[in-house]
Amino acid sequence: MDKEVMATDADGVAGPDLVVVEEPLQITVDGHPVAVTMRTPGHDADLALGFLLTEGVIRSATDVRKIDTESRRNHALVFLADGVEVDLGRLTRHVFSASSCGLCGKATIDAVTGCRPRLPDGPVFSKEVLLAAPDRLGAAQETFARTGGLHGAGIFGADGTMHVVREDIGRHNAVDKVLGHALRTGLDLSRCFLLVSGRVSFEIMQKALAGGLPLVAAISAPSSLAVEFARESNQTLVAFLRPPRFRVYAGRLAG
Amino acid sequence: MDKEVMATDADGVAGPDLVVVEEPLQITVDGHPVAVTMRTPGHDADLALGFLLTEGVIRSATDVRKIDTESRRNHALVFLADGVEVDLGRLTRHVFSASSCGLCGKATIDAVTGCRPRLPDGPVFSKEVLLAAPDRLGAAQETFARTGGLHGAGIFGADGTMHVVREDIGRHNAVDKVLGHALRTGLDLSRCFLLVSGRVSFEIMQKALAGGLPLVAAISAPSSLAVEFARESNQTLVAFLRPPRFRVYAGRLAG
Repeated sequence: MDKEVMATDADGVAGPDLVVVEEPLQITVDGHPVAVTMRTPGHDADLALGFLLTEGVIRSATDVRKIDTESRRNHALVFLADGVEVDLGRLTRHVFSASSCGLCGKATIDAVTGCRPRLPDGPVFSKEVLLAAPDRLGAAQETFARTGGLHGAGIFGADGTMHVVREDIGRHNAVDKVLGHALRTGLDLSRCFLLVSGRVSFEIMQKALAGGLPLVAAISAPSSLAVEFARESNQTLVAFLRPPRFRVYAGRLAG
Repeated sequence: MDKEVMATDADGVAGPDLVVVEEPLQITVDGHPVAVTMRTPGHDADLALGFLLTEGVIRSATDVRKIDTESRRNHALVFLADGVEVDLGRLTRHVFSASSCGLCGKATIDAVTGCRPRLPDGPVFSKEVLLAAPDRLGAAQETFARTGGLHGAGIFGADGTMHVVREDIGRHNAVDKVLGHALRTGLDLSRCFLLVSGRVSFEIMQKALAGGLPLVAAISAPSSLAVEFARESNQTLVAFLRPPRFRVYAGRLAG
């Protein structure tokens, strides 16, 4: 999603320019404000759903009765299903940090070093499927081509099927959007991998783990903590995925 | 700061690889934990100082008596000067969001749309000074060349002097580090500009405004809200600064 603004070039010539839209989204759960995130508008219900999953507030799409993104501009009003109780206190413990652990909800440094559930052994993905993914992600990233300003994230099946691609000014939002879509449509993420257009940090690995994704691939560089996290949680981590090259930092591929 | 890890390439050949270090830093103020941020270690005291400034907790370096980054690994223990009282409640109101407004401290959506102090008219920077900056920032970004994984931020004077450059896995951390350095060394930021190696979003403009910087330049794209924020706060915003080209989205340059 982009927007036209006026800009002036180095020669002082003014003209229209397309910039990516960034606006705040406030997420409320049964009337309680739980987050404000700067995002690119679009697929806001999926963003809210993915956020609540990866922050450990909900466990499945059936925990949510309705998400209203129409009544108030830049608000996602989430209503829980009857009988579902969530611990908003786990979000409260997040105070001050978007980077604390979404899996255990602790706000201190122990959060990010202490909590590492391990995934069960999943499918071993093929090189060919990995190598084919970046071109397809790129083709699906329509806005990036126009504005140069968006992160992309996509979920692909072990057979190479591209299930969903989303873009956002925030890399974590793009991941929340694809995970929210997967949750809503009942995709079996244990047979899928996540591809991100940029770098891969701790936070991306953590969100992928919360979604149960066994493999994360990135076009660009991994961080040290992403590598460490992947190894401890039994995730496969592929980075610098620039066909015909890539590097495997954790786990393994078939072939 | 980088670290060697083993990785396997597309042909299955294993070898050492350098990745950028990402580790959590917990910031405490007089014993109260106020934030955990994922950062690249180094210049942690400046990061804590810049964070507290741009989040509106402190107003000047003299508000802080000592920052201890030695006693505990990945902790910055900030001690306030005698008689200084800060409102940690303003951080508490940030709950759940790293993107809420650091200037007014509100956690709801009103925060990011309602609070826009205006800067007084500052210096008008020359094209030549702007165009010379990216090469100098790049030369100073030593780690990026090795790992491809870091954001850079630099503060330059109106005369072209490069005062400080810092790198971090988080773009906001790189900005906090240069602002913390400036605060500690008494740099007059009203005569300087900020250059960032990547894109420029709302959060970067907000931090620059908290530091009193009249101009922000970015190598890559601006977001719609960055443009809007710059115009309302009387900041100059230059993006796609790729000599000999650039685009001015708010304010103006000399010549």
